[in-house]
Amino acid sequence: MSFTLNQMAGFAALEKTGAFPELSDDLVGAILEEMGKYCDQVVAPLNKGSDEQGAVLENGVVRTSPGFKEAYRQYVDAGWNALAFPESAGGQGLPSTLAVAFIDGLNAACMSFAIGTTLTTGAIKAILHAATDEQKRLYLEKMVSGEWTGAMNLTEPQAGSDLSAIRTKAEPTGDGRYKISGQKIYITYGDHDLADNVVHLVLARLPDAPEGTAGISMFIVPKMHVNEDGSLGGRNDVQCIKLEEKMGLHGSPTCVMAFGENNECYGTILGEENKGLRNMFVMMNSARLDVGVQGVGVAERAYQHALAFAQDRQQGRAPGVRSGGMIPIYEHADVRRMLYSMKSLTEASRAICYANAVAYDLARHSPDDDQRAEAKALEGLLTPISKAWSTDRANEVTSLGVQIHGGMGYVEETGAAQYMRDARIAGIYEGTNGIQAMDLVGRKLQGDGGAAAGAFIQNVKEQAIIAKAAKDHDVQHIGARLEEGVTALEQSTQWLLNAAQNSQEDVLAGATPYLKQFGNVAGGYYLARGAVAAALAINEGGDTAYFNAKIAITKFYADAYLTEAVYLTDSVTSGADIVARLDPALLSA
Amino acid sequence: MSFTLNQMAGFAALEKTGAFPELSDDLVGAILEEMGKYCDQVVAPLNKGSDEQGAVLENGVVRTSPGFKEAYRQYVDAGWNALAFPESAGGQGLPSTLAVAFIDGLNAACMSFAIGTTLTTGAIKAILHAATDEQKRLYLEKMVSGEWTGAMNLTEPQAGSDLSAIRTKAEPTGDGRYKISGQKIYITYGDHDLADNVVHLVLARLPDAPEGTAGISMFIVPKMHVNEDGSLGGRNDVQCIKLEEKMGLHGSPTCVMAFGENNECYGTILGEENKGLRNMFVMMNSARLDVGVQGVGVAERAYQHALAFAQDRQQGRAPGVRSGGMIPIYEHADVRRMLYSMKSLTEASRAICYANAVAYDLARHSPDDDQRAEAKALEGLLTPISKAWSTDRANEVTSLGVQIHGGMGYVEETGAAQYMRDARIAGIYEGTNGIQAMDLVGRKLQGDGGAAAGAFIQNVKEQAIIAKAAKDHDVQHIGARLEEGVTALEQSTQWLLNAAQNSQEDVLAGATPYLKQFGNVAGGYYLARGAVAAALAINEGGDTAYFNAKIAITKFYADAYLTEAVYLTDSVTSGADIVARLDPALLSA
Repeated sequence: MSFTLNQMAGFAALEKTGAFPELSDDLVGAILEEMGKYCDQVVAPLNKGSDEQGAVLENGVVRTSPGFKEAYRQYVDAGWNALAFPESAGGQGLPSTLAVAFIDGLNAACMSFAIGTTLTTGAIKAILHAATDEQKRLYLEKMVSGEWTGAMNLTEPQAGSDLSAIRTKAEPTGDGRYKISGQKIYITYGDHDLADNVVHLVLARLPDAPEGTAGISMFIVPKMHVNEDGSLGGRNDVQCIKLEEKMGLHGSPTCVMAFGENNECYGTILGEENKGLRNMFVMMNSARLDVGVQGVGVAERAYQHALAFAQDRQQGRAPGVRSGGMIPIYEHADVRRMLYSMKSLTEASRAICYANAVAYDLARHSPDDDQRAEAKALEGLLTPISKAWSTDRANEVTSLGVQIHGGMGYVEETGAAQYMRDARIAGIYEGTNGIQAMDLVGRKLQGDGGAAAGAFIQNVKEQAIIAKAAKDHDVQHIGARLEEGVTALEQSTQWLLNAAQNSQEDVLAGATPYLKQFGNVAGGYYLARGAVAAALAINEGGDTAYFNAKIAITKFYADAYLTEAVYLTDSVTSGADIVARLDPALLSA
Repeated sequence: MSFTLNQMAGFAALEKTGAFPELSDDLVGAILEEMGKYCDQVVAPLNKGSDEQGAVLENGVVRTSPGFKEAYRQYVDAGWNALAFPESAGGQGLPSTLAVAFIDGLNAACMSFAIGTTLTTGAIKAILHAATDEQKRLYLEKMVSGEWTGAMNLTEPQAGSDLSAIRTKAEPTGDGRYKISGQKIYITYGDHDLADNVVHLVLARLPDAPEGTAGISMFIVPKMHVNEDGSLGGRNDVQCIKLEEKMGLHGSPTCVMAFGENNECYGTILGEENKGLRNMFVMMNSARLDVGVQGVGVAERAYQHALAFAQDRQQGRAPGVRSGGMIPIYEHADVRRMLYSMKSLTEASRAICYANAVAYDLARHSPDDDQRAEAKALEGLLTPISKAWSTDRANEVTSLGVQIHGGMGYVEETGAAQYMRDARIAGIYEGTNGIQAMDLVGRKLQGDGGAAAGAFIQNVKEQAIIAKAAKDHDVQHIGARLEEGVTALEQSTQWLLNAAQNSQEDVLAGATPYLKQFGNVAGGYYLARGAVAAALAINEGGDTAYFNAKIAITKFYADAYLTEAVYLTDSVTSGADIVARLDPALLSA
């Protein structure tokens, strides 16, 4: 993590901003160390049990998996939740990037435990962004500490990816409050027994609201009423009426939430009337990066599990050897290929997410206007890639983890299957990966006429030149592959920008392969930064074996995924005719 | 299926052999029709229930999922099991290709039901190949009818992919029988309540057997003893002592089998002493194709489910449209891309598997020596591709099915998740897909110095020329893409054959991407045959819309997967240095 932060993601730039006076290498080291202990010793042991004994709804109350309550108490007590929030809100004022590194570890430990904390984080950000002083006074401190948690209530059965169809209602009561009524589905940690209160942020419509997304407002709807002095009042008319049965992530309660079944559900408006989606995006953009990091974390866990298995499990012999003892399956080239795929994809997605987090922090804390603007553009560009690419790759990595285990991967005993089942949701929620791709080719690419993408591509090109100029042959090779990859990305980008002049349908048809290509190149870019740094470190007398392994994994990535990036241009630029509207009746024949 | 059989897989060649006098288009049509009814109406409705209420072990007896018993009775009564076995063994003497088409439909209906029948098929083939007349008299008829089922008992905890480590013992009793003792794991349908007897084929060692694979024999070990007159005797000392809890395929009992716990387990030897692996490969090669077809069937089911959902589910609007009603998600280009990926991959894998089946039949029934030899070579080449490529693609297709469903895909209610969980095993059992890739670059490619692969590549090149010469522009385009793909495959093939002179490690490092590349090209080849036929059919006044859809899907495939084939050469030819042995300790850092 430390290598990724410093040598790939540009973490050092945060110290230079001066916005984090207490930040130092020692502090970061100490935090990563403590984090490792908490994740390893407290949370990781709960993972398998949370799959076997998921959250349950009993008499209207959601009970979490064995051990979650105690682990959450330690999480709050240690101040993990407050890490990256401003000191003025009771936080520790450290960079969000460190919080991202923390949830990387937490997701590796137990994804279904970790997801709950990231929803609170997102809700806090929306409140920081849009709440009145009074709302902040009532909610912020308890949420920043983690004493209360947050939940995002967006989806309704008819309104999933398309929130314009939301029907939940909010009627002003005349005393500054609103009566909320409606049902929400797929509400992660909508109810649970980890904290005394759950602060719901709910999208709903005012009586006179315009149709569509322009008529959606956001409300703060606590599970327990909050008194003037901040203490807990009575129960609000909000409840979990069903838990979904899911493929995985059993430890995370996915709730159907009923608001106002007895017409007694009260909330306050968060931000302006009919501008609810704006707040939602504050919450959601942060959540999107966090979901990307879920992919990184669960992929890391699957990888470590598979690596240990491959060193232990004995099967077969080396090529040409006909007798004698069996060898660890790690010795088989095909198994190493799978492991290196897992490793390199996980490292690439980690680097992308961390770089995204650094951009997030710089965009908010740099004293330099240009740097802030540049970072903001990079953050916007990387967010859909962090979310979609990391989670698509997590599906692949966790599936390879099952494959390395052979038959043992398919039986639940070993745990490999759980990572794959758990990971699968991350490509779906917080905006499906298809939606991310549409965001990338739409708002992010066309929104500034390709400026942010162009700047990124320019950086990658320069990095390719640096790598090609290295003394190390492998690093040169990485540079050459990176150049091929970024050239292809540039072609696709240009093609999309041109196509956008004529037909959004053409652009949208290429969205998913473009995001994949972009992710492959971005991953190669950050890994290449690491490889160049590793080569320098060797020259300066660093641990040769360790740094050579970094270079070898990057080379593997370059040969597997930067070459893939090259071919994807064809898929991007085939345009709408390859996804022409065929009569579905003919397609089922 | 009919289009695939006739226009892609070359089914007509079977009629020309004269070996199937009763074979006619009418008969095939009638069989596919009946098959459709049985699969749709009897088996498909059991699928979801089999996931929710899987097989259970109660007091030493395995009970299958609700409805399985009755559906199996109908399967036996209708003669489905006997379809492709020789009339001399009580079968109907039809081509195996039709049985493959049948299990395609059966897997689409319910994979966990279908897998049981294919194990019986494999066991029958081993018995036909190696049994004494007496063994055939006792077992064949009942197994061909399906009245008794078969099970393959290979794996032991220490002997998975590597069977040399098998420890199960067989001691001659002096009366022509053997006492069997040992435990086997992962035994599919090792016990169940569908039939009166389970005929286990068991790999075990004789007391004086050489070490390793050269000391493994195969035994017939029935669950119930069989009397001289073929009637059932008492219970043999064979039992299921545990069922595995799996990620999916809950309806298929995966048994830990104990042989001779009371020292009273008796069997007879099947074939020669110490030559058990030979029989196993007879059984396994057939099973490998059948597993490939599992991938095809479950992918088809996932596709149909997702297509129906995409036509029904309303979300969002067309690009640029800001108000008005929502549209079916099928209207979104990205959703169509996913559907066309699913459709084209499923059709390609179906075509490969059917062509493999036709080769299997021709290799056994053609009166022409050359044709038999050619078919045998093609069968050998295609078997690992059918198995591994189809099942890898099934993982992808079923995962896309979940993705199209969005959040609903992740909750178990819709069924989309089940297909993904069920499909995941197919890439693992009957030899993991890594083993298939090693088989392809080893025995199949190097075994004949590249002759079979060269002949196949030549056929593909000719097909590319034919397609390029078509009047239809899309078919021309398909031809051009096919030419690029096969040229890349030829380069990889040549590289592997050269590398094999120096280093098997280099060859093995490229095995998996080579199999993927080969599968992509083979799929493109068979689809291109279909596209050429479709273009001709349009010229001859056929259903333009239907045949144009066939061409459009092939074009989609060409742009997505033949382009992918081109880049894979880099992965194949990067050689062993990209999977160099790195110290695992460095890899976990």
